[in-house]
Amino acid sequence: MKATQFHIATLREAPADAEVISHRLMMRAGMIKRLGAGIYNYMPLGLRVIRKVEAIVREEMNRAGAVELLMPIVQPAELWQETGRFDKMGPELLRIKDRHGRDFVVQPTSEEVITDIARQDLRSYKQLPKNFYQIQTKFRDERRPRFGLMRGREFIMKDAYSFDRDAAGAQASYQVMAQAYRRIFDRFGLRYRAVAADSGAIGGDLSEEFQVIAATGEDAIVYCPTSDYAANMEKAEALAPEGPRPAPTEPLQRVPTPGKSTCAEVAELLGVPLQRTVKSLVLATDTRNEAGDITATRIWLLLLRGDHDMNEVKVGKLPGMEGGYRFATQAEVEAHFGCRPGYLGPLGLQQPVTVVADREVALMADWICGGNEEDVHLTGVNWGRDLPEPALVADLRNVVAGDRSPDGKGVLAIERGIEVGHVFYLGTKYSRAMNASFLGEDGKPAFFEMGCYGIGITRLPAAAIEQNHDERGIIWPDAIAPFTLVICPIGMDRSEAVRSAAESLHDALAQAGVDVILDDRGERPGAMFADWELIGVPHRVVISERGLKDGRVEYQHRRDTEATGVALSELHAFLAARLGLGVLPVAP
Amino acid sequence: MKATQFHIATLREAPADAEVISHRLMMRAGMIKRLGAGIYNYMPLGLRVIRKVEAIVREEMNRAGAVELLMPIVQPAELWQETGRFDKMGPELLRIKDRHGRDFVVQPTSEEVITDIARQDLRSYKQLPKNFYQIQTKFRDERRPRFGLMRGREFIMKDAYSFDRDAAGAQASYQVMAQAYRRIFDRFGLRYRAVAADSGAIGGDLSEEFQVIAATGEDAIVYCPTSDYAANMEKAEALAPEGPRPAPTEPLQRVPTPGKSTCAEVAELLGVPLQRTVKSLVLATDTRNEAGDITATRIWLLLLRGDHDMNEVKVGKLPGMEGGYRFATQAEVEAHFGCRPGYLGPLGLQQPVTVVADREVALMADWICGGNEEDVHLTGVNWGRDLPEPALVADLRNVVAGDRSPDGKGVLAIERGIEVGHVFYLGTKYSRAMNASFLGEDGKPAFFEMGCYGIGITRLPAAAIEQNHDERGIIWPDAIAPFTLVICPIGMDRSEAVRSAAESLHDALAQAGVDVILDDRGERPGAMFADWELIGVPHRVVISERGLKDGRVEYQHRRDTEATGVALSELHAFLAARLGLGVLPVAP
Repeated sequence: MKATQFHIATLREAPADAEVISHRLMMRAGMIKRLGAGIYNYMPLGLRVIRKVEAIVREEMNRAGAVELLMPIVQPAELWQETGRFDKMGPELLRIKDRHGRDFVVQPTSEEVITDIARQDLRSYKQLPKNFYQIQTKFRDERRPRFGLMRGREFIMKDAYSFDRDAAGAQASYQVMAQAYRRIFDRFGLRYRAVAADSGAIGGDLSEEFQVIAATGEDAIVYCPTSDYAANMEKAEALAPEGPRPAPTEPLQRVPTPGKSTCAEVAELLGVPLQRTVKSLVLATDTRNEAGDITATRIWLLLLRGDHDMNEVKVGKLPGMEGGYRFATQAEVEAHFGCRPGYLGPLGLQQPVTVVADREVALMADWICGGNEEDVHLTGVNWGRDLPEPALVADLRNVVAGDRSPDGKGVLAIERGIEVGHVFYLGTKYSRAMNASFLGEDGKPAFFEMGCYGIGITRLPAAAIEQNHDERGIIWPDAIAPFTLVICPIGMDRSEAVRSAAESLHDALAQAGVDVILDDRGERPGAMFADWELIGVPHRVVISERGLKDGRVEYQHRRDTEATGVALSELHAFLAARLGLGVLPVAP
Repeated sequence: MKATQFHIATLREAPADAEVISHRLMMRAGMIKRLGAGIYNYMPLGLRVIRKVEAIVREEMNRAGAVELLMPIVQPAELWQETGRFDKMGPELLRIKDRHGRDFVVQPTSEEVITDIARQDLRSYKQLPKNFYQIQTKFRDERRPRFGLMRGREFIMKDAYSFDRDAAGAQASYQVMAQAYRRIFDRFGLRYRAVAADSGAIGGDLSEEFQVIAATGEDAIVYCPTSDYAANMEKAEALAPEGPRPAPTEPLQRVPTPGKSTCAEVAELLGVPLQRTVKSLVLATDTRNEAGDITATRIWLLLLRGDHDMNEVKVGKLPGMEGGYRFATQAEVEAHFGCRPGYLGPLGLQQPVTVVADREVALMADWICGGNEEDVHLTGVNWGRDLPEPALVADLRNVVAGDRSPDGKGVLAIERGIEVGHVFYLGTKYSRAMNASFLGEDGKPAFFEMGCYGIGITRLPAAAIEQNHDERGIIWPDAIAPFTLVICPIGMDRSEAVRSAAESLHDALAQAGVDVILDDRGERPGAMFADWELIGVPHRVVISERGLKDGRVEYQHRRDTEATGVALSELHAFLAARLGLGVLPVAP
């Protein structure tokens, strides 16, 4: 490819609304162009990256036995009404009316349509397992689209759906996909982790996220550097501390803490570590009758160590929380605790409250909490002595770095990641809702056991950039670079020798299947180098008249701090080694 | 590929709403599955065909120097308001409101977005010419979607847009595309014609349709079997008859024709050929003031030979018709002709009427027309003698088979076609509306000269089937077949020899890059053959135990009436020749 026959249009400045580095660099490199909020044109350079991502995904999906098809982008509402998602989903589901006033949606995913296909085409257990996938445009009408391709509204996703005769089959299909995903992410050449994720109402451990490691990632991922353990923050279990609860050593005391309503303020005032304090979170669960009116409300007091954060997913799984929970209102708090928030605690409650202690809190002695009285805290609080043992002890919190790993093989570390893939066991959630069944070996109909498997095709390049960039621009891994190698001739328009060397190297590399671009735009060296460093092409060969006179060209990898002189006679062998090719044709 | 690892799901019956053969066969073969009116799932078999079509198109577009990008499916209304199309286009433009109530459209084409890209990125004449294309999903909310992929609502189109500095450049870009289209359609292996099409208001001859020839085609295409002339019906010129107008031989006569209001009825009553009659069509053009109120109406009388049909596009180009025309109302007809339609003619008009004679009619003598009196016609009518020469003589009609070719090199024939491609010179229509300019060599801004170039990616397979099928099913050309060759083993589950021969042939072909499928489903021969004949795989090899004992397998092309025995020792050479391969690896 020659640059003049392609489309290179870099920008000096990123637009002001580009907040993250990948967004800024993709805009500046001319890989994407904004059309509307969360809606981007994939410009030729960006599309090349996306196509490479797609090709790797497609190859590995095919290798894993998945079969590609393509489902419509505009889908009739009827199927979405069968599962209830047409009504249940919020405004992120883009709803349309056609010319006849009929309801449609723009697909955010395709569980309904694929289940509809399965219930038509998969009649017998003999046709199972089957895994269908598509690489298709999706739309989610995000409330606040941002970060370029990281959280766009229109995006491309690979979504696969497996159909099995039973749960064991579905789990096997899930494992096949999880392995394919590892191969895919290995091939991208990015640092990533597969982390256990919460599988929600389905249960079991069959949900993993594939996270590209990047300091700017939205997600906190938890791992054990000395074992295989990895999970996302929602899922990572906080073990109970080792050993028994220490014996009380302090008396219960009422201390004035005027205006100090947070654990941090109280710890500072009293000159004790934050870890000695216990925070009180008041939640409520409502019971409703068939008409949807609230008939009863239960108030919960969750106790966490002052330096710990509540984990909403874990709390949602407490027995009694199945129907969802909310934070209690100020009126509810005052009615049960006789005090406004900021000074709450588990002692001297006015009304029945279900007390749940985090595993950590349940083993604390001589702790500090609110006194259920304005501007008052209690110190030297001890379970059993000053208040009853907690009704329930559970894992309520996010883990923190240094916590013991749940597998017992070390301590946890935390890093940031960008979710680019997810494998998920669905069970019969959709097949049951849509009455999608097959005839089993026993002659009886059974619902399909399903799994779903996504990769964010257009998010991946953004994640790759968050992980791989420097102050000059993007640094692509070879596998998904828009071009693998750029030839920068200096003075090509003046020197026939430079032109001829550049063109013959270009032709030799192109013939060997290398994705090469020859910059024949006639830009000055500084501007030319800056463009390609911004664009992030990993390998560069500079050809100059002076170099040619010495029988040399210069090679530089995008990560190298300086160029390497390479003799023309050795150039092909050198590049073949650098590009991981077997052999390159004749020397230029 | 093995059939059990793919997805084969043929149907005995096509659904009742499938009216045309391609729709019926694609449904029965399991290539598509209806999701809603004009909205189809592309099932694995169908997607394979579409991907092959895409690959050929992409390769030739790249070869022609076009650069691929991808524009969003959901596009903000603002750009569509700049060109006025947001308001002007009818309900076939699918309009959406997002969660914030902002207007969007689902793209039916992308002139606005690409022009917006050009006005941002193409600043100088030095960057021109440039041709951008995409292969992307489109949506047109057709009033009556039908015929499966032939006239769907959601479909995939390749749309390219060229940008040039002047009209000469645009015409050169147009020619490059027209040539690329010929290469593309040649490669598809279909019989097609590139026909001149009307270029509407832009003028010139720079509009061609690529029509796949099929008896069931919606379009009439006109060509000269002894020359290169080809045009669509709207465009094809009807020459004036040769020689001068014959001298009058009959007197003008008033004949009673009670109840005979059509030319055919009158010709039959009078016992003369239909070609002796002249039909009268009454049109009207309105002049409006700025408020849009009609201030004047002009009435036109168009005269055509009784057996000819009016051509709406040609009539729309008559001087005075620029603003559009309509058929006159009954009241207008009666006011000007003193008679109701059915007995109208150009003699004895009551009010001023612009008479336009078709070229053919202008050279007729002794003709027959209505007498402007109920149940009365005139015979022996002659120009000059009985009425003034016509105010205007023009080509008003559709050509018919046997007409002289406009290039003077033979006579015209007519066949049916399906439009699958269109190349079109746009001029500055969009660039002007969107103020999209570049800096010219003279330092002055100039509007881009544009062209647009479409190929209906998902319509093409349907057109291919309309052209290539028989009573057993589809017959794919090799280039776009879902699989090139199917291996049908008989009794593979019983015979190790059959299994081994089938698998080694499969592996050898796959390794040679042949798109081969091995039917390992264990179907009985009749059902297996019927499936593959329906699906239309062009090459078939049947392997049976009996054949292997004789050292033979059977080969049959989908168009062959019977199978050919091929010795195992010659099989690879035989298949290499049939499939147009250089060489196949070692014998099985």
